[in-house]
Amino acid sequence: MATERLVVVGGDAAGMSAASQARRLKGPQDLEIVAFERGRFTSYSACGIPYWVGGLVPERDDLIARTPEEHRARDIDLRTRTEVVELDLPGSRVRARDLDGGSESWTHYDKLVLATGARPVRPRLPGIGAHGVYGIQTLDDGQRLVDALERTRGRRAVVVGAGYIGVEMAEALVLRGYEVTVLHRGEQPMATLDPDMGGLVHTAMNRMGIRTVAGAEVTGILADDGRARAVATSAGEEYPADVVVLGIGVEPRTALARAAGLPLGPSGGILTDLSMRVRGHENVWAGGDCVEVLDLVAGRTRHIPLGTHANKHGQVIGSGVGGGYATFPGVVGTAVSKICDLEIARTGLRERDALEAGLRFVTATITSTNTAGYYPGAAEMTVKMLAERRTGRLLGVQIVGGAGSAKRVDIAAVALTAGMTVEQVVSLDLGYAPPFSPVWDPVMVAARKAVSAVRAAGV
Amino acid sequence: MATERLVVVGGDAAGMSAASQARRLKGPQDLEIVAFERGRFTSYSACGIPYWVGGLVPERDDLIARTPEEHRARDIDLRTRTEVVELDLPGSRVRARDLDGGSESWTHYDKLVLATGARPVRPRLPGIGAHGVYGIQTLDDGQRLVDALERTRGRRAVVVGAGYIGVEMAEALVLRGYEVTVLHRGEQPMATLDPDMGGLVHTAMNRMGIRTVAGAEVTGILADDGRARAVATSAGEEYPADVVVLGIGVEPRTALARAAGLPLGPSGGILTDLSMRVRGHENVWAGGDCVEVLDLVAGRTRHIPLGTHANKHGQVIGSGVGGGYATFPGVVGTAVSKICDLEIARTGLRERDALEAGLRFVTATITSTNTAGYYPGAAEMTVKMLAERRTGRLLGVQIVGGAGSAKRVDIAAVALTAGMTVEQVVSLDLGYAPPFSPVWDPVMVAARKAVSAVRAAGV
Repeated sequence: MATERLVVVGGDAAGMSAASQARRLKGPQDLEIVAFERGRFTSYSACGIPYWVGGLVPERDDLIARTPEEHRARDIDLRTRTEVVELDLPGSRVRARDLDGGSESWTHYDKLVLATGARPVRPRLPGIGAHGVYGIQTLDDGQRLVDALERTRGRRAVVVGAGYIGVEMAEALVLRGYEVTVLHRGEQPMATLDPDMGGLVHTAMNRMGIRTVAGAEVTGILADDGRARAVATSAGEEYPADVVVLGIGVEPRTALARAAGLPLGPSGGILTDLSMRVRGHENVWAGGDCVEVLDLVAGRTRHIPLGTHANKHGQVIGSGVGGGYATFPGVVGTAVSKICDLEIARTGLRERDALEAGLRFVTATITSTNTAGYYPGAAEMTVKMLAERRTGRLLGVQIVGGAGSAKRVDIAAVALTAGMTVEQVVSLDLGYAPPFSPVWDPVMVAARKAVSAVRAAGV
Repeated sequence: MATERLVVVGGDAAGMSAASQARRLKGPQDLEIVAFERGRFTSYSACGIPYWVGGLVPERDDLIARTPEEHRARDIDLRTRTEVVELDLPGSRVRARDLDGGSESWTHYDKLVLATGARPVRPRLPGIGAHGVYGIQTLDDGQRLVDALERTRGRRAVVVGAGYIGVEMAEALVLRGYEVTVLHRGEQPMATLDPDMGGLVHTAMNRMGIRTVAGAEVTGILADDGRARAVATSAGEEYPADVVVLGIGVEPRTALARAAGLPLGPSGGILTDLSMRVRGHENVWAGGDCVEVLDLVAGRTRHIPLGTHANKHGQVIGSGVGGGYATFPGVVGTAVSKICDLEIARTGLRERDALEAGLRFVTATITSTNTAGYYPGAAEMTVKMLAERRTGRLLGVQIVGGAGSAKRVDIAAVALTAGMTVEQVVSLDLGYAPPFSPVWDPVMVAARKAVSAVRAAGV
């Protein structure tokens, strides 16, 4: 059998997981692997950047799971600082540009993996290109911010957006000694939660000295000599800033895919089948932050950029490319985070998601404790649960509270995947001991209340 | 409708939960509730006793969820220090003895709840009745031990048995300043785990200064003037002890039920149906540590004394007694604990359980970290997984490691309940963020290895 060539576009989690898994299954005699990466780094934890910026993780390289050299040692022809600028699908080739030298060349492929990731949303605003304005998506982005923070003696930081990245970056900047203001559009920070639960995050942010401004519509970055000095909002206010961090989310980086005519979903991500093959393209796979994933609870695709999904996609793709078989069945929308000591988690549908999905539901919210109430250090844990009317099927869970709150959501993530009802959740055999849970786990307390709500709502 | 009378035998978790839930559903006009309790306390956390003994929980009363007075205020005729000494099922009545006054009387019931709990196994050994030998099952037991510890200036403690209670009491006694020796029969402590995982517990116990003696068969307690001074083993050794704590497990307290001819299972616990009615007895329910529960993975009943089950039983019984409907479908065998900072968890079947159940299986053990490896304070987490051959069905998980290990087992508990395969576990959408998990949760890493093991084992 002749040697096939796999070309991978993008050298972070999905791309290099795919390459590594394919290499595990097929040796260099059977499969040549060429991987293109625009940046200087590969296989790093983008999710870890806020902890590095905040100083909790001492070294940038701590975030790198596998260096370019390590990949090359495993017979992967990895070309960093090389950007793929065109996909020629009919010709089975890609055109790549050496970002340092400027030269371009075409590379033929038998199999193609697209793992181009996501990029921070940068609204077209006056001043958005000023120095001192940072998006945080790649390790190169993070390096630019860290360099700037070390170079300048800033005092005030403005974070635009209060999602996961915004909240984590706000905490990191506080740890760096900055006065931090977070401007966000919604009623409450952390709009991945319902506002009632987001309110708990708001309180925790304020408690650690972060100023939050709700309903803030940023209209521009005010700059002096091309350097940001303040953020302006539609309310006519100006928030002075030595550094501005954009945490308003990311969007799939799919210009190449779009130009090549690949199918994109409603959120702009590439659409794949369950084996992560691009729909309608036998020899093209896509994974990571550039694809949409099936939301098993809502019954539709979504763009959910998360390292854990990207790694799984890579495994599945690498298996397929290597002649094996694996699938990625979809997600239930689990995400966890923290601000200071407050852990934040969600899975499944928020109220607005359930409405959008055409579901009728009841909600139940309870506050209990993360350990037995009498155990030293017991902290509050608030659980909100959504259940379908009539059937009682679990639809979503949000948890905010002390230690153990974040991963508590995994109970619900598994239950959602299994299609359990809230009544079944009440009967689960969950771990109990006083240092870890009250005798009724808070998730079960919420489920009990949800059972009552389902009954009370009738048909 | 005439007033019915509910009689509850036993005033801790199951009994008083049943009484409280029944009272919620039916007022005193419809249902009179009489509850008998041998001890002085009601509705307390027996699982919390080691933390009180160790001084982490300052006050005994912190462990009491609801006092006798609080129950009485809710129209429950609670009689403490009153022991039921006979069940007359044909006559629908119970005979109770006032333990202080000594008088006895019969009480008629329409509905009967048996919640007589468990008692520490006390092997018939010479000297077992000596002063200074303690079983720890009830709050009265705990009070006796705490009184003794405060009264005497002991230095050396011997704990017999290295299950949950034994290990927790060993730590409590270390916190009290004792030199602690734990004598246990098996190869490793914590026989609720397979020995390879128990070895990790062994190391942690030794690290905190607890001496452990494996394969130790206790032959008697040596006493001076009726006061224990040492524990003797079949190896001819003597372990000096100012205090001896028995942690060799408990057995269902079912003398009453046995005398009344109620059906008992292979472990000596009362057998009930799914609504916690005693099999074949329309008006008699039983729950808590005196019953056997259905092990959904092994397909048989077991005696699993745990406060969390007892509370659920009480809810189910109270619903049934009160004219509602609820069931307790069974357990998967989840249990969590800790020694010092090491968290210990299991669910489903150990190797020996799977063999006993007639199952063929593969195992996979991995060591990862509880957070992203680069996150400060990352600690090891070891996960062992059992999967059925051919089908790949998840059979059991054991986890030992740093913070977050114990409740991690809930993922597997839910997956077991749902009958998932290890391949399905690999695809779960579990919470990921660097402070809480590596990008591949350790449970998924174990599942990936188990998938390979299932494939390698063939049919």
